[in-house]
Amino acid sequence: MADSLPSWNDGPAKGAITAFVNATTDPNSKDFVREEDRIATFDQDGTLWVEHPMYTQLAFALSRLAELAPQHPEWKTSEPFKSALAGDLAAFAKFTMADLETLVAASHAGMTTDQFHAIVRDWIAKATHPRWKRPYTDLVYQPMLEVMQYLRANGFKTYIVTGGGQAFVRAYAERVYATPPEHVIGSSLETTFAYDADGKAVLMRPAKLLLYNDLAGKPEDIYLFLGRAPLAAFGNSTGDQQMLEYTQAPGGVRLMALVLHDDPEREYAYGPEAGQADTKFGAFTQALYDRATSKGWVVVSMKRDWKRIFSFD
Amino acid sequence: MADSLPSWNDGPAKGAITAFVNATTDPNSKDFVREEDRIATFDQDGTLWVEHPMYTQLAFALSRLAELAPQHPEWKTSEPFKSALAGDLAAFAKFTMADLETLVAASHAGMTTDQFHAIVRDWIAKATHPRWKRPYTDLVYQPMLEVMQYLRANGFKTYIVTGGGQAFVRAYAERVYATPPEHVIGSSLETTFAYDADGKAVLMRPAKLLLYNDLAGKPEDIYLFLGRAPLAAFGNSTGDQQMLEYTQAPGGVRLMALVLHDDPEREYAYGPEAGQADTKFGAFTQALYDRATSKGWVVVSMKRDWKRIFSFD
Repeated sequence: MADSLPSWNDGPAKGAITAFVNATTDPNSKDFVREEDRIATFDQDGTLWVEHPMYTQLAFALSRLAELAPQHPEWKTSEPFKSALAGDLAAFAKFTMADLETLVAASHAGMTTDQFHAIVRDWIAKATHPRWKRPYTDLVYQPMLEVMQYLRANGFKTYIVTGGGQAFVRAYAERVYATPPEHVIGSSLETTFAYDADGKAVLMRPAKLLLYNDLAGKPEDIYLFLGRAPLAAFGNSTGDQQMLEYTQAPGGVRLMALVLHDDPEREYAYGPEAGQADTKFGAFTQALYDRATSKGWVVVSMKRDWKRIFSFD
Repeated sequence: MADSLPSWNDGPAKGAITAFVNATTDPNSKDFVREEDRIATFDQDGTLWVEHPMYTQLAFALSRLAELAPQHPEWKTSEPFKSALAGDLAAFAKFTMADLETLVAASHAGMTTDQFHAIVRDWIAKATHPRWKRPYTDLVYQPMLEVMQYLRANGFKTYIVTGGGQAFVRAYAERVYATPPEHVIGSSLETTFAYDADGKAVLMRPAKLLLYNDLAGKPEDIYLFLGRAPLAAFGNSTGDQQMLEYTQAPGGVRLMALVLHDDPEREYAYGPEAGQADTKFGAFTQALYDRATSKGWVVVSMKRDWKRIFSFD
């Protein structure tokens, strides 16, 4: 039989994934789950693609602010714009949620949904990662793409559940992850129905947050969109902890997995061994590692478990 | 070839539906749409099932309030509870949105999502319609079930987009419409992630509205859930007007349809000929009829177009 996960080394992580799929999809298994309820959710940043040195969407926001700055001379002297335009990552780490909402409002709102989609699509086609000098969309983890494909081939629906912007991720998710827009759940601005000059229906994006899809927001929004817990969930930080707890809550055979960044040569190392402290978006802390161990969650070591990281490796 | 719509009389409505499906699914058609983008949305109350003499969900709320009333003696003398407990439909029609939110809070909130699901499932299994003395779930329109099945057989995904409660409709949608929970978009309360006494993850339902999925809320929430306009949309009132406008906006071959209640013998008659005025939830007014005509929307006459109304006819 062909190996569905060729970029994975044999070991406990790969074994746990294949054992889970066999147990839930074999009609003779006592843990068989009908196809309708086979749902798997995936965090994006740090789980499906590189999130260092900054979230791709933050790079987008900074690029967009730089583009708009000439029309806003006041940004040169007022925070959080001043630090954002200077690309000051240390300042960014200290931004409050209100600061971030201000930056999102300036860079992501005040246009139609179609206009925003076109802006993201054009940016992501051209922007490149500072380390690999390749499009950000090349920096998806090949082993995780294989997990998504393997699950879909076994009747699962695969959803991206991201703290990032839903409209941002949907602009490239089908091309990059083979995931249609309705299978992307993320942080969302409200939209407002309106008519354009020709009387045609459009949706505007006001600067007003509707869903903050991180931490507890992940299970809340999974319920809003899907009406039930997933059967499997993949994350990489405390921002995903509640999603994994919600996945595990109904009992039975379920798969909860965390990607551990412990490979400074091929990618980055910023897990508990690197002494990472928690951040407002989550982090892979020692406490999360201990929780994973005590709850039977799978910890995927990039260094140990992944034969290759990217499709171009 | 077998007739996919056996409960429909031949005529312009049936013809428009089959012509739309042929045009968008025949690979040799210039209007062919790939399967991924074949999305159809259906209003529920008055479009898929009977909405008179009152919305089924209102009957549920009243029944639930009656059940809880002994614990709330103050409801006997304070509005909107007093009128609700008296089943005063005239008073109900005059309730403000704030009144309705008060009633929803008392009857739909303050429990876990699993508890609410069980309450609805038990209620809908027993409750019967006052006119037909049958379960409400028997009172779905057979011709509309056939349209949903016909579309699905042709690669469409069928979504219910209801002004009613998302969690309420999801409790029976799979059984009644063959529609999984994630294909139901409706008005929604917020949920709050919490832990129960055993430390297990649960979602609570606080009395706080998150999505009001009627009127402009329909296209806004379709975009939130699906990221794009449907290819076909069915409604029956001004509450669906914006959904139909959003469906039509991208241009090309699309199907917009309104069910007209003009059959007082077999169901009810409350369209423009009955001089219906608009309500806060929408109505089939003369203005809507004129708009449908001018925009090329299909008006489905229950009397003329439907050979039978219910599966038990």
